[in-house]
Amino acid sequence: MGLVVQKFGGTSVGSVERILNVAACVREEKERGNDVVVVVSAMGKSTDQLVSLAKDITKEPSKREMDMLLSTGEQVTIALLSMALQQQGLEAVSFTGWQAGIVTEPVHGNARIAKINPEAIQAQVSTGKVVIVAGFQGVTVDGEITTLGRGGSDTTAVALAAALNADKCDIYTDVTGVFTTDPRYVKDARKLLSVSYDEMLELANLGAGVLHPRAVEFAKNYKVQLVVRSSMEKEEGTVIEEEATMEQNLVVRGVAFEDEITRVTVLGLTNSLTSLSTIFTTLAQNHLNVDIIIQSTTEAGSANLSFSIHTNDLLETVKVLEDNKAELGYEQLDAENKLAKVSIVGSGMISNPGVAAKMFKVLAENDVQIKMVSTSEIKVSAVVEEKNMLKAVEALHTAFELGQQQ
Amino acid sequence: MGLVVQKFGGTSVGSVERILNVAACVREEKERGNDVVVVVSAMGKSTDQLVSLAKDITKEPSKREMDMLLSTGEQVTIALLSMALQQQGLEAVSFTGWQAGIVTEPVHGNARIAKINPEAIQAQVSTGKVVIVAGFQGVTVDGEITTLGRGGSDTTAVALAAALNADKCDIYTDVTGVFTTDPRYVKDARKLLSVSYDEMLELANLGAGVLHPRAVEFAKNYKVQLVVRSSMEKEEGTVIEEEATMEQNLVVRGVAFEDEITRVTVLGLTNSLTSLSTIFTTLAQNHLNVDIIIQSTTEAGSANLSFSIHTNDLLETVKVLEDNKAELGYEQLDAENKLAKVSIVGSGMISNPGVAAKMFKVLAENDVQIKMVSTSEIKVSAVVEEKNMLKAVEALHTAFELGQQQ
Repeated sequence: MGLVVQKFGGTSVGSVERILNVAACVREEKERGNDVVVVVSAMGKSTDQLVSLAKDITKEPSKREMDMLLSTGEQVTIALLSMALQQQGLEAVSFTGWQAGIVTEPVHGNARIAKINPEAIQAQVSTGKVVIVAGFQGVTVDGEITTLGRGGSDTTAVALAAALNADKCDIYTDVTGVFTTDPRYVKDARKLLSVSYDEMLELANLGAGVLHPRAVEFAKNYKVQLVVRSSMEKEEGTVIEEEATMEQNLVVRGVAFEDEITRVTVLGLTNSLTSLSTIFTTLAQNHLNVDIIIQSTTEAGSANLSFSIHTNDLLETVKVLEDNKAELGYEQLDAENKLAKVSIVGSGMISNPGVAAKMFKVLAENDVQIKMVSTSEIKVSAVVEEKNMLKAVEALHTAFELGQQQ
Repeated sequence: MGLVVQKFGGTSVGSVERILNVAACVREEKERGNDVVVVVSAMGKSTDQLVSLAKDITKEPSKREMDMLLSTGEQVTIALLSMALQQQGLEAVSFTGWQAGIVTEPVHGNARIAKINPEAIQAQVSTGKVVIVAGFQGVTVDGEITTLGRGGSDTTAVALAAALNADKCDIYTDVTGVFTTDPRYVKDARKLLSVSYDEMLELANLGAGVLHPRAVEFAKNYKVQLVVRSSMEKEEGTVIEEEATMEQNLVVRGVAFEDEITRVTVLGLTNSLTSLSTIFTTLAQNHLNVDIIIQSTTEAGSANLSFSIHTNDLLETVKVLEDNKAELGYEQLDAENKLAKVSIVGSGMISNPGVAAKMFKVLAENDVQIKMVSTSEIKVSAVVEEKNMLKAVEALHTAFELGQQQ
């Protein structure tokens, strides 16, 4: 008998019928003799509805009050799932983030988990109860409600699995596993039976959408075995663990993509060395995530800097840069919207220097202009125009022989 | 400069527009130089929507999980109102029940406030912030979320006013004050400028709907001055204080009414003395409120007992009685639904013995059958069939000369 942490996302709990389906999944696990802790997200579109209410009140709602507002979404789900389990004869108890002992740093909108006090959950699990925990949320040491930002429920699940010493963490989602690329857009996409943490990290970071990168990092650090699987279909999912046990010979494992990218350009930096450090320190202090960074020097000796961000963060990024203009010492700001990032990922790349070259060649053959490039040991990313994103993905998926027929 | 507690009910915060209107009310109070603590209910029909979700999952949701579910309603409102105030340039901070230090007894669905730890609110008020508190909810010493039951937001407001030593507590509602009877049903209803706590207590207890009786009791015990007024219209409200300062010569001050009453009859109680005590102790332990009680003895020496409850409590009341049948020692249970209670209230009644007689005469003349009767020093209540309720109210309102033209 072990302990399993199950996580169900917003689509899986999107209606009363689906919550009853989740209750059946939980019950099956319980009947296999395991203790079960369940982490759930807000129901389907409920977070969007709450955001829209806030936007009707004010264009710039405070992050503290957004956390207060959005954290109600998961609280509704935990109560309903607990009722559904009790209705099926299981003993269950629901916990909000603060009740579950999920302590975060004192930041609103995008807090990281600082510590988990698992005693309250453990006390309930030891009496045989299923414990249902609100994902995506926590509490500061001062009793302020915080949220973990996008995909935070994955992080809650993996962090709980680590804190509770769980035997595994099943991430139930609306797809049956991790694919070579997004099967909603590319018909030829193929499910992978296993991937390594590092590959998953790149896929997650690159917007594969199945799993949040922070969750994968957490899992890697604490060696939590993750399984990505469907809550609707019974088929086997994708195991994420230390080493991908199969298909090691494949150079490229998948093609990831992400839209709503904006490129911000800072022109005329006079003292580029200190400016660079100051700019990214300032953005980080404001919890604005920057992805690809490119710097070039002009003939006059000043420097131009470009970096990519999520389009949602544009207003705040510009505000932070303008508020600190004197200190940063630049001439002008510029931004380009409607961009997307396309990436190829695979741990086999390290020993195959021609992979990036092949990627650029394929994009050029398809008339896809490359705006920015970034590489790591196991991935190559290109920022392109949003309208070219899917064309690029399909071309790369075919060129690297990732499809069903290969 | 003083401290004012303002309470806005579900209708007053029922939409984004209305929340902005509430923000304007708060701002006016703040601009008069007062510190302000605001208590709000859930938005309009949102509680009903949450209840309906729960009922789709299970017919008998656990009270603990219902509290978990329903407490999200007020949490949404406090966040939105805080945003609205910030948008208008006021500093504001929202608190859930547990953050506001509202400690209740360990009961779900109908908890009473045990204690308020006002330090967190006071700390924010002292910095000039408007503090917005979720009504209707609290937390046990073990960190369980509880709700206060129907009308609980009024109780939150008055309890906070007492704990914070506020100068007054303004109850904003969808009517402009306390009326001689419900103006939504009786056109002739007239607004009262002031009523005593005791009169308001009877009016509230009798379903006048404007203010929860527990709130009035709290206000009476802690001598909190209450004002009932409209959030939409600027006109003067009704002051509730120690002595009604005007209109003392009127014998009957108002006609209250309440539908969804059920009469439960327990037949063949063998040992009526101990049974009576046991029955009502057992019901009280299960937090089931009993209103009117009538007992009669049969020729055979056993007793029959009737009491009235809210129709919603019928299933649970029957369950409690049946579970304890052996101990209680009765033969049979019976219940009659679709009843209503009509009451006349006024502190002048004490010295006017003919008032009850006149009430019964008016009801008889209008063919309204009386099922149960209850009297106190300042009210007379009659349980009648629901279909006769409004006819009875109108006849009594006219007979006791309460209308606009009198």
